[in-house]
Amino acid sequence: MRTQVCIIGGGPSGLLLSQVLHRAGIETVVLERRSREYVLGRIRAGVLEGGTVQMLRDADVGSRMARDGFPHSGTYVAARNRGFRVDFNALTGKDVMVYGQTEVTADLYAARDAMGGTVIHGVDGVTLQDVDSDTPHVTYELNGATHRIDCDWIAGCDGFHGVSRRTIPPSVLRTVERVYPFGWLGVLSRTRPAADELIYANHERGFALASMRNDRLSRYYIQAPVDDPLEKWSDTAFWDELRRRLPADVAEAMEIGPTIEKSIAPLRSFVAEPMRWGRLCLVGDAAHIVPPTGAKGLNLAVSDVHYLSEGLIQHYAGTPEGIDAYSARALARVWKATRFSWWFTTLMHRFPDDNAAFHLAMQEAEIDYLEHSTAAQTAMAENYVGLPF
Amino acid sequence: MRTQVCIIGGGPSGLLLSQVLHRAGIETVVLERRSREYVLGRIRAGVLEGGTVQMLRDADVGSRMARDGFPHSGTYVAARNRGFRVDFNALTGKDVMVYGQTEVTADLYAARDAMGGTVIHGVDGVTLQDVDSDTPHVTYELNGATHRIDCDWIAGCDGFHGVSRRTIPPSVLRTVERVYPFGWLGVLSRTRPAADELIYANHERGFALASMRNDRLSRYYIQAPVDDPLEKWSDTAFWDELRRRLPADVAEAMEIGPTIEKSIAPLRSFVAEPMRWGRLCLVGDAAHIVPPTGAKGLNLAVSDVHYLSEGLIQHYAGTPEGIDAYSARALARVWKATRFSWWFTTLMHRFPDDNAAFHLAMQEAEIDYLEHSTAAQTAMAENYVGLPF
Repeated sequence: MRTQVCIIGGGPSGLLLSQVLHRAGIETVVLERRSREYVLGRIRAGVLEGGTVQMLRDADVGSRMARDGFPHSGTYVAARNRGFRVDFNALTGKDVMVYGQTEVTADLYAARDAMGGTVIHGVDGVTLQDVDSDTPHVTYELNGATHRIDCDWIAGCDGFHGVSRRTIPPSVLRTVERVYPFGWLGVLSRTRPAADELIYANHERGFALASMRNDRLSRYYIQAPVDDPLEKWSDTAFWDELRRRLPADVAEAMEIGPTIEKSIAPLRSFVAEPMRWGRLCLVGDAAHIVPPTGAKGLNLAVSDVHYLSEGLIQHYAGTPEGIDAYSARALARVWKATRFSWWFTTLMHRFPDDNAAFHLAMQEAEIDYLEHSTAAQTAMAENYVGLPF
Repeated sequence: MRTQVCIIGGGPSGLLLSQVLHRAGIETVVLERRSREYVLGRIRAGVLEGGTVQMLRDADVGSRMARDGFPHSGTYVAARNRGFRVDFNALTGKDVMVYGQTEVTADLYAARDAMGGTVIHGVDGVTLQDVDSDTPHVTYELNGATHRIDCDWIAGCDGFHGVSRRTIPPSVLRTVERVYPFGWLGVLSRTRPAADELIYANHERGFALASMRNDRLSRYYIQAPVDDPLEKWSDTAFWDELRRRLPADVAEAMEIGPTIEKSIAPLRSFVAEPMRWGRLCLVGDAAHIVPPTGAKGLNLAVSDVHYLSEGLIQHYAGTPEGIDAYSARALARVWKATRFSWWFTTLMHRFPDDNAAFHLAMQEAEIDYLEHSTAAQTAMAENYVGLPF
């Protein structure tokens, strides 16, 4: 088989790239290890930046989001001794959109189906070949047979554990990483959200986040040891702990009920550079991971798709500058979002370090400063709603 | 002897408090362990916030500063791959004043002399007695004799190592501290300053700061191991290292010459609370230490003097609220400045920690963000010029 761009990974970034390129007349094949049902069953982030919303609209996958998504113009920040709202719209003129990654992925699959896009599921043993030549190809196994796709470009949209980044020689790839000493225990429940906007809570027992997908679907997280067995967290134990960490008036009034999903995820900051090697371009989690505080993961993947699709479209129109600048342009934004996610994570969590009292005092001072300084709130808001592409 | 307010420590905060109270008709005695010559020989910070300048003017000690000080409306920030200016005045409408602490102290002594203020030098064995009663007194040794001062209030302006803070029982005092894993090697030289404003430089070899006192007196600092023997730092070694860390064009053009002072100082963040216990009120370094990055030390001492003098003047006018709120009011500002100094120190220095590559990447991302975000520059500027009293 031959295509122009072979896309490794059928998650939202691979699908969106495929969609954007297809609309520009560029052929793609998407290879995905898992089934469509598995991909659509993954529960991920749910806050989209304005730039992400615009990308989805431009790719003609924005209609259900426009109908079912919830624009939020601010967020609440809570700490033991205070609570306040940061008004994104008043500070930056921009909102964010609450619309789950699961829904985005479903919309993208529907759009790919409607355009007759090629997405091959269940592939195994994907190998990227001759990536540093102008004639790369990809091999994979499917139903016991080996297949080969010749292509001009390979887009590595296959996540942190995928093969794409590992194809780049260690001598070329520079990585930095911070693994945070805790995880997030996340719960989904068919209950009315605790508040009309998200609540990020710094509490002496640990961070908590009250989030939502829609009017009847709440998403909550609490900071927890990453190696806690899930059995330890009965629904009762979870709700009790969550309510201890949220502001008292919210905790008292909130609806609770059976949880329909419960899992513990690690928190990591990770950046690999360069994001392009030869004819391989990394996209999203394949190149960088942020902790979920501030919801930058999917949004960064979408900005990568923006830069990469622009570069590839220019390339096929005879202009190499865009694709040559892909890594630098994408990384400039990746580093800023990595900094913001690290800052927000560091500000809001309990750290079991050797000088916890000092760091706690600095958190309190910074939250106090954030509450009272328009400049500090603007800096937070402009990062939260998304720095411009 | 009897006075209304016994002030322990004849540095700038003790002298300014004495001056402000005297002008309001409140009697003080200042006790200082060292000679006046020793106090005036100490070389300290040299950047005054607008609020500090106003306090000095209001206390009638601003005339020489008005003539010999240098208003600065911004500062330069440099890193390996970039340099830019943060325009304080454009961002906040405020300047800072470059005028050495040594000069401030000399002006205060002159003003105290002119008003006939009592400053007793060379006292030993200062002991604060009955501080938790309404009738405290202070005893001290001078020329072999023991003296006693009865007073209404004691102001502890005797610095980090002074007796005042240690008088407060450990069960009452809460402290947090961070000792940074490096020091500042500081040099004074009769040379033309390297630039018209300060340069804060983040360099892979360590932090550097190009500062000044006047047209012919430069003040430079480089990050260095705090236990480095001074012999290791010949003038040549110092200038070579400084010039490696400053932007190349500045390093090439700058005047160098013999140094007239050279010393290594540790960097520490420290806050003790409460700042009042009974009839004792702590002021400045006696209660809190900041690392010198951002020049907050003297300015915080002056804001303490502002709150304390206001409280005492109200007290003698029959209103207790001001002095009762002293600790809380002073600390609210202390915490914010402690946070800023910690942030700026953390942003600009090399840290020999176990994940130096990640922290370096975050520094680069934050400096890049600072360069390009008006909100981030405003947050830095409003702290640098001084948050309002």
